[in-house]
Amino acid sequence: MAAKKIVIDCDPGIDDALAIALAHGSPALEIVGITTVGGNVSLERTTDNALRLREFLGFPEVPVTPGAAGAMLRSAIEAAHVHGTGGLGGAVLPEATLPVAPGHASDYIIETLRAHPGEITLVAIGPLTNIALAVLKEPRVVDWVREFAILGGTYTRGNRTPAAEFNIAADPEAAAIVFRAGWTVTQIGLDVSTTAQATEAVVKRMRALGRLGEDLLVPCATFYGMVTASEGPAIHDACALAYLADPSLIEFEPAWVEVETAGRFTSGMTVIDFALGDRVANANVGTSIQVDRFWELTLSAYERVNQGLLRRR
Amino acid sequence: MAAKKIVIDCDPGIDDALAIALAHGSPALEIVGITTVGGNVSLERTTDNALRLREFLGFPEVPVTPGAAGAMLRSAIEAAHVHGTGGLGGAVLPEATLPVAPGHASDYIIETLRAHPGEITLVAIGPLTNIALAVLKEPRVVDWVREFAILGGTYTRGNRTPAAEFNIAADPEAAAIVFRAGWTVTQIGLDVSTTAQATEAVVKRMRALGRLGEDLLVPCATFYGMVTASEGPAIHDACALAYLADPSLIEFEPAWVEVETAGRFTSGMTVIDFALGDRVANANVGTSIQVDRFWELTLSAYERVNQGLLRRR
Amino acid sequence: MAAKKIVIDCDPGIDDALAIALAHGSPALEIVGITTVGGNVSLERTTDNALRLREFLGFPEVPVTPGAAGAMLRSAIEAAHVHGTGGLGGAVLPEATLPVAPGHASDYIIETLRAHPGEITLVAIGPLTNIALAVLKEPRVVDWVREFAILGGTYTRGNRTPAAEFNIAADPEAAAIVFRAGWTVTQIGLDVSTTAQATEAVVKRMRALGRLGEDLLVPCATFYGMVTASEGPAIHDACALAYLADPSLIEFEPAWVEVETAGRFTSGMTVIDFALGDRVANANVGTSIQVDRFWELTLSAYERVNQGLLRRR
Amino acid sequence: MAAKKIVIDCDPGIDDALAIALAHGSPALEIVGITTVGGNVSLERTTDNALRLREFLGFPEVPVTPGAAGAMLRSAIEAAHVHGTGGLGGAVLPEATLPVAPGHASDYIIETLRAHPGEITLVAIGPLTNIALAVLKEPRVVDWVREFAILGGTYTRGNRTPAAEFNIAADPEAAAIVFRAGWTVTQIGLDVSTTAQATEAVVKRMRALGRLGEDLLVPCATFYGMVTASEGPAIHDACALAYLADPSLIEFEPAWVEVETAGRFTSGMTVIDFALGDRVANANVGTSIQVDRFWELTLSAYERVNQGLLRRR
Repeated sequence: MAAKKIVIDCDPGIDDALAIALAHGSPALEIVGITTVGGNVSLERTTDNALRLREFLGFPEVPVTPGAAGAMLRSAIEAAHVHGTGGLGGAVLPEATLPVAPGHASDYIIETLRAHPGEITLVAIGPLTNIALAVLKEPRVVDWVREFAILGGTYTRGNRTPAAEFNIAADPEAAAIVFRAGWTVTQIGLDVSTTAQATEAVVKRMRALGRLGEDLLVPCATFYGMVTASEGPAIHDACALAYLADPSLIEFEPAWVEVETAGRFTSGMTVIDFALGDRVANANVGTSIQVDRFWELTLSAYERVNQGLLRRR
Repeated sequence: MAAKKIVIDCDPGIDDALAIALAHGSPALEIVGITTVGGNVSLERTTDNALRLREFLGFPEVPVTPGAAGAMLRSAIEAAHVHGTGGLGGAVLPEATLPVAPGHASDYIIETLRAHPGEITLVAIGPLTNIALAVLKEPRVVDWVREFAILGGTYTRGNRTPAAEFNIAADPEAAAIVFRAGWTVTQIGLDVSTTAQATEAVVKRMRALGRLGEDLLVPCATFYGMVTASEGPAIHDACALAYLADPSLIEFEPAWVEVETAGRFTSGMTVIDFALGDRVANANVGTSIQVDRFWELTLSAYERVNQGLLRRR
Repeated sequence: MAAKKIVIDCDPGIDDALAIALAHGSPALEIVGITTVGGNVSLERTTDNALRLREFLGFPEVPVTPGAAGAMLRSAIEAAHVHGTGGLGGAVLPEATLPVAPGHASDYIIETLRAHPGEITLVAIGPLTNIALAVLKEPRVVDWVREFAILGGTYTRGNRTPAAEFNIAADPEAAAIVFRAGWTVTQIGLDVSTTAQATEAVVKRMRALGRLGEDLLVPCATFYGMVTASEGPAIHDACALAYLADPSLIEFEPAWVEVETAGRFTSGMTVIDFALGDRVANANVGTSIQVDRFWELTLSAYERVNQGLLRRR
Repeated sequence: MAAKKIVIDCDPGIDDALAIALAHGSPALEIVGITTVGGNVSLERTTDNALRLREFLGFPEVPVTPGAAGAMLRSAIEAAHVHGTGGLGGAVLPEATLPVAPGHASDYIIETLRAHPGEITLVAIGPLTNIALAVLKEPRVVDWVREFAILGGTYTRGNRTPAAEFNIAADPEAAAIVFRAGWTVTQIGLDVSTTAQATEAVVKRMRALGRLGEDLLVPCATFYGMVTASEGPAIHDACALAYLADPSLIEFEPAWVEVETAGRFTSGMTVIDFALGDRVANANVGTSIQVDRFWELTLSAYERVNQGLLRRR
C-alpha cells in the first residue's frame, strides 16, 4: 500500500517536533509539505525550527512554507514557558542551510490540494489560522482534501484555561471558521492526548535511540516533563500523526462541534455535542487511544529515523 | 451530636423529592425550612410538590416558603420532559392541606440565618435565583451561614448543554452572583452525581420500602430512568443532602469558580479552575463520591422515613 | 389638582441633589419616599447625602431607605472624580440628625406601591439595582406603579463609554431586568439631558437664590462644570423630575429597548429600536426637551425651596 | 496633478453602482482595479453587476477580481430587499461580454499594493472580508497603501440594527481585523452619508443625464428611495468616492475604533471613542459633509460619464 501523503501545518514546538519525527519515520506516511504558523512560539521560531528539523531528520526535498504570524483577531498567547524560548525545549539542532519555499502557507495548502484532489491528508497541529485562511479563500479545499485531522480542543478539560485547549484558544475565530467549513474534521484533543504520556520507561527507550534520542527526543521530552510538572509529559501532537499512520489506534464518535468566541471565561472552548439530533456531524471526535500500541508505533518510527541518521553520517 | 439544621432551597422535581426524603430520614439532619424556586417545573408546581411532600413524608411543622418564579434575566428552560408534567414523574401524592408560609423565600433565608448565625446550613438543589436575591439584599448571609452547599455545575460535561448543568444554566446570572458572594461554596456537580446511579439493585431495595417505595421512590426513579434513557438514573440532588448527612462521602478540591454568562454556546457553564495561584478558593468542588456508602446512607434514611409512615397510619 | 406622589431612587450625586431640590420645590410633586443605591459614590455616601439633603431642604418627614451597595454582578465603577469624593461637588451640607428608615429600599418600594396601587410614580436616577431587586421579588410592582421613569441610557452616544451611559453601565444586568419587567419605562437619557445645560446665565440665577444657591446649587453646578470641562454642565437627573412635574416638557417616541450585557465594548448600552414591528413598546424614549421651559420650571422650584429655607430660619 | 489611483472593493449594490460611476467620471480619480465581495447581494450578483457596470460605464481595461462570497464566521445577511433581487434596483444593464480577472480579490489587492507602494488608494464600500483576508495574509499592505478609506460604521445610529451599519454588521470579525491592522482607516459612516440625500431636485438633475440617468442613475435612486421609504435616499457609498476625489468635502476627527463581535444586540457596531487618551488613533472618522458641494462634484462626474457614453455610440 502506498504511503499516505500528508501536509503538516505546525508550530514547532516540542510536541510538533516529536510528531514530525514520527511522521518521517513512519512507512505509512509521506510528508509532502510542511507549513508553519505562529503559536507555541513566534512564526520566526516555528519556521526556523521546521527548517532545522527538516535537515536534521533528513527530508530536505520537502517544502517548508510559512504562513500566519498570529491569530486573526487576538493577541498572541505564546507558550514559550512550555516549549523553551527556542521552542524545542533543551534541544539545539544545527542551523538550517536551506530556505523556506516562496508564498504563503494558505496558498501552498490550496494549490497542493487542488493539484491532487482526494489524495492529500491535511493535519494541523498548531493554531488553525492557516487552515482558516485557506478555506476562506478557497472553500473547495474541503472537497479536495482526503482527510483533515487536527490536534486540538477537548470535550472535558482545557490546558490553556479550564475550558480551552491551547491550539484552539490561540485563535478561536480561526477554529470556528475551520469547524464550519463544511468538512468532517477528525478532531483529536486533550481527552485522547493526555493519556499518551512519555513515561520514564518511554524516555528510557528514547534515550537508547542514538543521536535522535540524544539530540532531539530526550531533551524535548524531559524539558516538557519539567515544565508541565509531570513525570510523564503528554506528547499531544504525536497522537494526530500516529492516528494517520494507523487509524485503528484511536476510537472516535461523531459530534457537532462549535467553537466559543464570545465567552468571558470560555473563549476558545470546543463545545462538543455528541447528541447530534438532526445535525450531520461536523467532526469525528477522538475518545480514546491504545497507549501501548501508540508508543510501539511511535518508537518504531523513531528507530527508523535514527537508522536514517546513521546512514547519512 | 445534635442534628445539623438545614434549609433546603429546591424545585421538586424528582431528584429533589428523593433528596428531601433522604434529609427527612437522616438522623444527622434536621430540616428547619424549605424554600421553593421555579426550575424543573413552574414555581406553582415546585411549591405544590414541596407542600405535598411535606405532608406525605410527615414534617408538617416545617415552613415552606415560595420564592422566585423564574430566572433573573432569562426565559425559563423548564425540564417537564425529564420530571413529568407534574414534576414528580409517575408519583401522585395526596393534595396538601396546609398552606405556604407568608413572605418570600429570599427573606425567609435572610431572616433564618440572621436569627441563628453560624448554625444553619443552606443547601440549594435548584436554580440559584433565591440565593442570589438573598445575598444581593443582605450580603451578610455569607457570614451567618454555617455552610452553603449546592447541587449544580460541572467541571467536565453538562447535561443541559455540552457545557452547562441544568441548575446553573437555568439562571446563569444568579449563579454568577452566588459564586462571587464572598463565601466558599460547597459545590457538588455532575462530576460526582452522575456516578451515583439508582441501579436495578437499588430500585429493587426501594421497591421493598412499603408505601414510601411504592408511592414515591419507585415511580420517581423509574420515570427518571426512562426519560434519561439510562438503566440507572442519577439521583443528583440526593448527593448534596447525603454529603450534609455524612461529609466523608465526597472528596473535594478547592477551586476558583466563575459562571459564564456571555458565551454563545457556553452560557451557564461553571468554569472551574483548580489552579488557584494567588486566589483564595471560592468553592470546594466535589470530585468523587463513595457510591456504595452513599446508597447505604440513602436507603437507611428511606427505611426510617417508611417506618414513620407506618407509625402515622 | 393633587400633587403627584413620587418615590425617588437615587445616588446623590450632584445632579441627584439638584433633582431632589427640584422635586421638593415643585408644587406638582410630592416626595413620599427616597431610596438610595450605590453609584456615583458609595452607598454610605449616597445615603448620607440623601439624609443631609432631606434636612437641609426641609422635608424631614420623608423616609430615606438605603438599598443595594453595588451592582448585581459587576465591580463598582464609581464616579467620585465627577461628583467629588463627598458626592456633592463643592457643597458641604450640615450633618444629618435623623436616621435612615429600617428595611431595604427594594422592600420599601414594593410595600409602598402595594399599599397605594395606581397612585405612586417611581423615578430612578441612579443605577437600577434596587428597582431590579424589587421587580424580581415582587413582579406585580409593574402593575401597581402609576408610572416608572428613569434618567439613564442613550440612543446615540454614551458618557461612561462611547456606547453606554453611566447609570446603565453601572449595573447592566439590573437595567436588563428592569426593561424586561413588563411595564413601559419612561426613559429619559443623554439624548435629552445633555441639551439642558446649566449655562452661565442659569448659574447666575442660581447664585441669586440665597442660601440654596450659595450652599448647594452653585457649588454643585460649578464643580460639575469644571470636571466635565464644560461651560454649561448638564444636570441630567433634574430632567426626569422636571418631566414628572410637567410632562409636556419632553417629547417621546415608543421603542423596544434591550440592554447589552455581553459585549466586549458595549456592555451597559441601551440598544433602542424605534422600529417596533410586531413588538409592543417596552419604553417611551425621550427625544427632546424644551430647554427654556425646563429651566423656568427648575428655577421656579428652586426659588420656592429657598423661600422655605428662609421661613425655617 | 495626476489622478489618484484607486482600487475599489465593492458589492454592487445600488449605491456601489452610483459610487463607481462617480469615480469613473471624476478627473481626480483613476480606477485601476475593482474587487468584489458578497454583501448587498450574493458574490455572483455583485461580480456580475461589476462586470456590467464596467462595460456600460466604459472602462473595459480595468480588471474585476472576485473575492469572498460571504462573511468569515457568520451567515449572510443579504439586503436584496433594499437593492432589488438583481442588486441594482430597477436598473437593467446589458450583459457583460468580458470575463473576470483570474485569482482572488485579496491577492489582487496585495499584489497591486506591493507593486506600487505608496501609490494606490484602497477604498472598501462593502463588507470588509476581502480586506481582512489581505491584511491577514500580507500585513505589509498597511505600509504599502497610500490611503485606506471605507464607507461603513456609525458613531450614532445603525441601519442594519439600532447599533450597527450594514457593511460592518455583515462581517464584524473582518471589520475588527481591518481596524486593528495597524493603519489609520479613513472611516466614513452613516453619520456622514445619511445627510447626503438624493432629493427630488437631485433626481431631476440625474434624469437630465441622458442614457446614464435613464438606464442607471434614476432607476437606482428611485428604487432605493422607495424601499428606504425616504423621499431622498442617501447614496452612502458615493460619499467615500467623493471624498477621495475632493478630501475637503468631509470633516474628520481622529478616534479609536473597536468593532463589537461579542454582543447580544450590538454585534457589528463600530464603537468609536474620540477621547483617545494615550492611544494613537486607528481611524479618522468623518463627522460632516458639505452636501451641496458633494452633489455638485457627483453630478459633474455623472455628466462626464454621460458624455463618454454619447461619444462611444
